[in-house]
Amino acid sequence: MTSESTTEQQKNTRIEHDLLGDQAVPADALYGIQTQRAKQNFDITGMPISHFPELVKSLAMVKAAAARANHSHGLLTDEKAGAIQDACQTLINGEHHDQFIVDLIQGGAGTSTNMNANEVIANIGLKKLGHEYGQYTHLHPNNDINRSQSTNDVYPTAARLAIVFAAQSLKSAIGNIQKSLAAKGEEFSDVLKMGRTQMQDAVPMTLGQEFHAFASDLGGERTSIDHACAQLCEVNLGGTAIGTGINAPSGYASLAVSELADISGLPVSLADDLIAASADMGAFVTFSGSLKRLAVKLSKLSNDLRLLSSGPRTGLAEINLPAMQPGSSIMPGKVNPVIPEAMNQTAFQVMGTDTTITMAAEAAQLQLNAMEPLIIYNLLNNCRILSQSIKMLDELCIRGITANEDRCNQHVENSIGIVTALVPHIGYDNASRIAGHALLSGLGVAELVRKEDLLTDEQLAEILSPKAMLQSS
Amino acid sequence: MTSESTTEQQKNTRIEHDLLGDQAVPADALYGIQTQRAKQNFDITGMPISHFPELVKSLAMVKAAAARANHSHGLLTDEKAGAIQDACQTLINGEHHDQFIVDLIQGGAGTSTNMNANEVIANIGLKKLGHEYGQYTHLHPNNDINRSQSTNDVYPTAARLAIVFAAQSLKSAIGNIQKSLAAKGEEFSDVLKMGRTQMQDAVPMTLGQEFHAFASDLGGERTSIDHACAQLCEVNLGGTAIGTGINAPSGYASLAVSELADISGLPVSLADDLIAASADMGAFVTFSGSLKRLAVKLSKLSNDLRLLSSGPRTGLAEINLPAMQPGSSIMPGKVNPVIPEAMNQTAFQVMGTDTTITMAAEAAQLQLNAMEPLIIYNLLNNCRILSQSIKMLDELCIRGITANEDRCNQHVENSIGIVTALVPHIGYDNASRIAGHALLSGLGVAELVRKEDLLTDEQLAEILSPKAMLQSS
Amino acid sequence: MTSESTTEQQKNTRIEHDLLGDQAVPADALYGIQTQRAKQNFDITGMPISHFPELVKSLAMVKAAAARANHSHGLLTDEKAGAIQDACQTLINGEHHDQFIVDLIQGGAGTSTNMNANEVIANIGLKKLGHEYGQYTHLHPNNDINRSQSTNDVYPTAARLAIVFAAQSLKSAIGNIQKSLAAKGEEFSDVLKMGRTQMQDAVPMTLGQEFHAFASDLGGERTSIDHACAQLCEVNLGGTAIGTGINAPSGYASLAVSELADISGLPVSLADDLIAASADMGAFVTFSGSLKRLAVKLSKLSNDLRLLSSGPRTGLAEINLPAMQPGSSIMPGKVNPVIPEAMNQTAFQVMGTDTTITMAAEAAQLQLNAMEPLIIYNLLNNCRILSQSIKMLDELCIRGITANEDRCNQHVENSIGIVTALVPHIGYDNASRIAGHALLSGLGVAELVRKEDLLTDEQLAEILSPKAMLQSS
Amino acid sequence: MTSESTTEQQKNTRIEHDLLGDQAVPADALYGIQTQRAKQNFDITGMPISHFPELVKSLAMVKAAAARANHSHGLLTDEKAGAIQDACQTLINGEHHDQFIVDLIQGGAGTSTNMNANEVIANIGLKKLGHEYGQYTHLHPNNDINRSQSTNDVYPTAARLAIVFAAQSLKSAIGNIQKSLAAKGEEFSDVLKMGRTQMQDAVPMTLGQEFHAFASDLGGERTSIDHACAQLCEVNLGGTAIGTGINAPSGYASLAVSELADISGLPVSLADDLIAASADMGAFVTFSGSLKRLAVKLSKLSNDLRLLSSGPRTGLAEINLPAMQPGSSIMPGKVNPVIPEAMNQTAFQVMGTDTTITMAAEAAQLQLNAMEPLIIYNLLNNCRILSQSIKMLDELCIRGITANEDRCNQHVENSIGIVTALVPHIGYDNASRIAGHALLSGLGVAELVRKEDLLTDEQLAEILSPKAMLQSS
Repeated sequence: MTSESTTEQQKNTRIEHDLLGDQAVPADALYGIQTQRAKQNFDITGMPISHFPELVKSLAMVKAAAARANHSHGLLTDEKAGAIQDACQTLINGEHHDQFIVDLIQGGAGTSTNMNANEVIANIGLKKLGHEYGQYTHLHPNNDINRSQSTNDVYPTAARLAIVFAAQSLKSAIGNIQKSLAAKGEEFSDVLKMGRTQMQDAVPMTLGQEFHAFASDLGGERTSIDHACAQLCEVNLGGTAIGTGINAPSGYASLAVSELADISGLPVSLADDLIAASADMGAFVTFSGSLKRLAVKLSKLSNDLRLLSSGPRTGLAEINLPAMQPGSSIMPGKVNPVIPEAMNQTAFQVMGTDTTITMAAEAAQLQLNAMEPLIIYNLLNNCRILSQSIKMLDELCIRGITANEDRCNQHVENSIGIVTALVPHIGYDNASRIAGHALLSGLGVAELVRKEDLLTDEQLAEILSPKAMLQSS
Repeated sequence: MTSESTTEQQKNTRIEHDLLGDQAVPADALYGIQTQRAKQNFDITGMPISHFPELVKSLAMVKAAAARANHSHGLLTDEKAGAIQDACQTLINGEHHDQFIVDLIQGGAGTSTNMNANEVIANIGLKKLGHEYGQYTHLHPNNDINRSQSTNDVYPTAARLAIVFAAQSLKSAIGNIQKSLAAKGEEFSDVLKMGRTQMQDAVPMTLGQEFHAFASDLGGERTSIDHACAQLCEVNLGGTAIGTGINAPSGYASLAVSELADISGLPVSLADDLIAASADMGAFVTFSGSLKRLAVKLSKLSNDLRLLSSGPRTGLAEINLPAMQPGSSIMPGKVNPVIPEAMNQTAFQVMGTDTTITMAAEAAQLQLNAMEPLIIYNLLNNCRILSQSIKMLDELCIRGITANEDRCNQHVENSIGIVTALVPHIGYDNASRIAGHALLSGLGVAELVRKEDLLTDEQLAEILSPKAMLQSS
Repeated sequence: MTSESTTEQQKNTRIEHDLLGDQAVPADALYGIQTQRAKQNFDITGMPISHFPELVKSLAMVKAAAARANHSHGLLTDEKAGAIQDACQTLINGEHHDQFIVDLIQGGAGTSTNMNANEVIANIGLKKLGHEYGQYTHLHPNNDINRSQSTNDVYPTAARLAIVFAAQSLKSAIGNIQKSLAAKGEEFSDVLKMGRTQMQDAVPMTLGQEFHAFASDLGGERTSIDHACAQLCEVNLGGTAIGTGINAPSGYASLAVSELADISGLPVSLADDLIAASADMGAFVTFSGSLKRLAVKLSKLSNDLRLLSSGPRTGLAEINLPAMQPGSSIMPGKVNPVIPEAMNQTAFQVMGTDTTITMAAEAAQLQLNAMEPLIIYNLLNNCRILSQSIKMLDELCIRGITANEDRCNQHVENSIGIVTALVPHIGYDNASRIAGHALLSGLGVAELVRKEDLLTDEQLAEILSPKAMLQSS
Repeated sequence: MTSESTTEQQKNTRIEHDLLGDQAVPADALYGIQTQRAKQNFDITGMPISHFPELVKSLAMVKAAAARANHSHGLLTDEKAGAIQDACQTLINGEHHDQFIVDLIQGGAGTSTNMNANEVIANIGLKKLGHEYGQYTHLHPNNDINRSQSTNDVYPTAARLAIVFAAQSLKSAIGNIQKSLAAKGEEFSDVLKMGRTQMQDAVPMTLGQEFHAFASDLGGERTSIDHACAQLCEVNLGGTAIGTGINAPSGYASLAVSELADISGLPVSLADDLIAASADMGAFVTFSGSLKRLAVKLSKLSNDLRLLSSGPRTGLAEINLPAMQPGSSIMPGKVNPVIPEAMNQTAFQVMGTDTTITMAAEAAQLQLNAMEPLIIYNLLNNCRILSQSIKMLDELCIRGITANEDRCNQHVENSIGIVTALVPHIGYDNASRIAGHALLSGLGVAELVRKEDLLTDEQLAEILSPKAMLQSS
């Protein structure tokens, strides 16, 4: 390298120093040496922290809360505390997220994420205070921004908040699709059709009941997510390194948590046993379980939509999904259920990565779980892909579904399954015999019952009326 | 076959009849033709229904509740209703469980289990009423025992109860091990040791805090199980085939559920949407998630116990596990942590079969999930192996743990990690330098601080006192 | 306890001694003190070693091979070596398996299983040599039976053999079901039907092609299992405790392995790096992967059978599965696809426990994997439930399937999908338009093409002939 | 919108048409209407096809091979065939990848990916032929580019190639890390240390043997991947829609596959049963199993590195990992094993998504698997994150590891485990007693043996010499 280019490079970089020695960082970077090292160490997913704005904002909220608590304890001057809070607010406002460059999957239990935040906040603050980037004697990433803190309490606390924020979008998407399903339930309330169990014709119901059940099936999901979020709101902020609160003054933890509740608007509270809380991934496992349960239900719904719309000529063909794109590069006119298929795939991704999260949670050792970044990455990502996919399923599929009413009705008329309604009147054994006869002969159930004089026409008409068969107890 | 042996066989069997034709069953069998067919069809796990007494009892409770409700609706005579209830009580008392012979993994969404119950109850009832086994005209498995019912509401309802009963044993085991861990927490409250994060020396704590955290970490598990059990108590009894309640009289469902609450002593209630409830495995998925979360925590606990007791000479060796058996066929005197190792394996079994349950739940189609038997088998089995293993871990390991107090103390004295406590006093950068120097030179942290005159002896003594370092905020 | 009953008990037990002290074992037990302790320590699955005769036999083969090698090295007298080999042969013949009482899931990395074998063989041998049970000075479980061995080489070696034996049964079941599927392929070779992609009507094929593809889809499974078995045949026998071969004479390992090949009839060979081999579960993971892949295919097959036989009136109804049992306790005449449903459940069990095996394999630490027993239990169990279920699916379902030929044909005649065959002749855009028109109007494709004079009748007849449409390139 | 801005927009877009109507696409886009629709439909991962250049290139290779085969069959003119091949070469060269904009997770079984390729190639070709973008009458995405093809054969074929290409990078990374581990094995060949089983001191070995075993443990992984790649090279190109080869001329399939082998340089061959091959995900499942097995081994390696380097003062501390970044925001001087921790997380991601792939593979229905995109996304992504992480582990960790030789040696000297070496000389029972005594008294094994006169000093010296204890059989 010529001296000229060296000089050029020097103009574009500044040198920072840590335990391991010197390191150049871009001159205008808000991040510093530790972020730079981590960037070089971890190049796995290609997905940086900034991919999840909720996480950047939550980190800033935690840092602001800590600054307020440190200020109250006399550990930060008015000037420093103000600068830190201003800097955090900038991040909460959505600015400078591009400075969060570390890969989401990283070793170090989140230290690099925490240091990325400490360094960016320090440099924003330094600028506000009239200093140059990197002049940390005036505002230090560790001594000031990270004061009374450790990655081990800051990182999981911020992650919990970020997940709760992500869950809010998800819940909104769930609410919308439930409404759409319920609306279809209303729309189809008069469409009589056969219910099916084990892929075999069972007994009659309405298409409206079926869609209403789809809506009901999602009924508990928002509650389930809320239940998990409530657990996430118990944080270990103030526990510092291992939950003993080393280097944080007495009273700091509850004050910081109270400030965090104020800043975030979330009902965060302090965990009972901070040592246990430092290594405990229980709430993340529970939250992942909620996402998985939701995924199971969405996948079942998608499977059902694909079954019910199978055809157009050789399938069940009871409903039509809106055509979103030509279905085939070779088969003209084919329109495939592409939207539910995409939903299925998102669901499988969520179910599989629940296993990832389980393994990562199990890998905690003694006072910490070094695999937290993987857990957090997958939970934030799963919230996002679920939200997007539910919105897609709702807007591009559910809302446009139409019924093939004639075909639904014919299914009931031709069915043998209606023999079930006769059991209380002619007994199980007679009914079995009639059903077997119908199957072999191709004749109708009512016809056979009349032929055997087991019931009168009037009785049959009443027993087999939709009203009677659908009367739910 | 000679006519003689045929006659002999005829003496030992009776012939029953169904849709598919005749079938011999053992003359003294309480079960009947459909059980016999299912026994022949399914030979998979080798584990019959009777393996889980909770399931047999719960089936009997459901059948008794249905009989009461049918009687109230005038659908069963006093005599029949009485005979059914008596028969059910016999099963609840633990008799005749050997008559539940069908493999737990079965096709048919539990129909064979339901029919096994219907047939056994019919035959016990027939005997009480003075009839022979198999004379179903007097008390019919379908028309009477299964009156107003379908497998599709009876089987999941009984399974839910069975799981709740199994969960009670599990919760008791959890409560006991928590007590043992907390007792060790008290016992070891004065044993100063180093905490570790990421397998690296961190900052001091007590062994008592560590065990107390183990206890705390299980603190939410009973609540988590209770939460899942509450969901399991919402049943679809009365929904019959697909949730429309076909063949059940109006008002039957709520009455039957109320009788079931009375008989079982559990807070069972009727699900809101019986059609959705027929196919919905949500509560099972949630329950499995709770077991999995518990397993994650037990596995982490076991891993930690194995780490802390590693040695005796070349490991951490901070604690001793009780010796339960010679450890090696080749290495004399070796005593291995066999009990935590067994606990780990149970935990992995639970985590893996959570995936099984997820897949089975996702496989519901339209109005039913045909894979319910697999879900129920795994949940009941997982409750059992967890209960047994927790009891084992508690009684054969935790209660006998002793501390190597000297070694724990030496670890603190030699540690570099105590430099953390100096950060608020000498700054992060000074502390880093001192730590690096200590590591390279093998010298002590306090010694180096004194040498550099960074702090006085008095300051050092106060900052590094256990009281100061362990003071939790 | 009175002195009388004590005396009585003494008559029925003998006292053995180990590192941990004295312990009574039943007087007539072939097992000894360490088995007894393990029995008391582990009560998890309730499934003892004897549940898998392959495992008992394989343990005996390994012990016999070791005895031969020790004898060659002058480490066992003729008398002892003979007694051990005779005892092992007894076990290989299937006798005394009830003496293998330890739970399959156990701590200690299989030490208890190995000691159970050592003790049973010692006592059978002692009897043969004219001594009493327990007089181990004449034939010692550790010094003689376990000579030059460690659990850490014996247990995985025996487990590998046991799995290979279990795989042979499984492969036989796979071969049979392939034959049955291929036979149906022949039987249905003239049944024209519509193929379906994404649950939508695609292009024509024959039902014979569909069943032939089912057979082909299983075509690679035996090869895949063989490939995994070949890896299992690389054993670490002779590596003893950690693979360094401590306490085994030079040359012992290759001799013992060669004797094992002779006794077992399997192509076992010595692993290259015995230290790596001691902790490596790679071959087990690969074998589990093969079972999982097989399970995926069997589940897909079962799903397809359930789809194709859906109906009888409102489903696809292209085939009929044999009726194996009445399908419903409430719906007379309903016959459900219970056999494929059971197959599905077995498949899910195998897929889920593959996750268990993965977790257990990952939990190896340094020179050993303490979770081996869990891996081995699941692999043996999965072989068994797969073998049983495939046999069930083959014999109780596949072989009895019949075709609804008329319905299959009608599906083709009514289909829009045949428009695909016209693309090379009229272009994708014309074909799309015709397809759309057909869908909306309910008219046939050929009719519309004729109406637009796009092709002549003769051209249409040729293009749409089954021969043309099915001609596989 | 004002007419001016409409005009402006018209300038920037062109209008294309399909079955569903008109759609604007950017005027300079190489992709067309179907890509545009898919882009709008699927917004899930945010990761477009172009994220994996191997996939774009493989699509181009398949399209080029098909063009050659079509040309040979007289289905494409010289001009069209030439234009297509030129366009494909452009993509193979790495140009225009930014035009592959559809989300990797998509419904439609890959139709959108195939159409994205068809449209981009058509437009590049049109430009070369002197036409405007979108003038498909001269070169048609379906009629020409997709001639004799269907998504259902093109997409999986291209995906298989892409995975094989990705596997090549992965294998290279594995080879490198093996070399580094083996080099450390050489470097540490004289460092005597204690082996450990079940976290307990076992018998002596060298650190060189331990690292050599790490290398050996990865020894089979490239073979395992090759084995899976061989299966991936069996393709269904020419099977078109469902494997019957509809719309492809006789002989096309083998010709196209042979051209593909030529273009790709890979040993691709035609699958035996193209109908089975259309829906069969077996090779993908096997490949995922290979990645999972590799992940299991890498995670075990990482765990061991973290264990062996635990400390610096209170852990095993037998080795030192290179310090890559300051370890803690609160604990100065702490250096964490961040690189192995990141490797662990990648491994868990691969293991969990193996479950995703299993579920997606199981979800095939009849003649197709609509979940292919999810499988392919995860396999390509897992190849990438594994390659990156292995490279990281190799270069930033393994190569810089140093040994703490003194500590390793002391571990052997203090150990009780060496008593094992005495068993052949003093018997298991004597050895057990000595070991127990040593443990309680803190005395050395050799000292106790001498005290009891069980062996002479000379015997002891020989038996306990490293040479004797490490002699591998």
